[in-house]
Amino acid sequence: MAIEELTPQERDSWLRALPKWSLARDGRAIERSFEFADFAEAFAFMTRIAIIAEKRDHHPEWSNVYNKVEIALTTHDAGGLSLRDVNMAKKIDKIV
Amino acid sequence: MAIEELTPQERDSWLRALPKWSLARDGRAIERSFEFADFAEAFAFMTRIAIIAEKRDHHPEWSNVYNKVEIALTTHDAGGLSLRDVNMAKKIDKIV
Repeated sequence: MAIEELTPQERDSWLRALPKWSLARDGRAIERSFEFADFAEAFAFMTRIAIIAEKRDHHPEWSNVYNKVEIALTTHDAGGLSLRDVNMAKKIDKIV
Repeated sequence: MAIEELTPQERDSWLRALPKWSLARDGRAIERSFEFADFAEAFAFMTRIAIIAEKRDHHPEWSNVYNKVEIALTTHDAGGLSLRDVNMAKKIDKIV
């Protein structure tokens, strides 16, 4: 899978296809917040993502407070956003 | 279980018994960082804590980046640290 950093043009184009994600201030990650009914639902969601992330060897940076989950996706090997982040964001959008 | 906020004296006394935890800057939470071999180990640790947290109805505020986990414990109902945080920290220390 591509680990080259997206060009600003590619990035903007992909972001239009991911309307629920926003670009981090430094332009190197995309972020989305999620809210669930309770902790059990939030952690069940995280568990599904964890398994996918491990399979793809592409892991989110994330935090959880009770029913809220914040996810940032970035590709360290590319020094910013890559297609791997786009694909992971799409997968997460499908799960939620 | 107690949900009263600890007095500064109680807090300092308990913190001496939890040398791996440090007090948050606002004094309302205790924090500890963990490092594992890889993501799978880090998430396995989180899963064990999630189940305990749900059982106790006392949930951590936490974040994860690959093999690193940061945990903060606080008791919102008490407006700061309570014995529930101390007990959870002890439990986490036993797991790790």
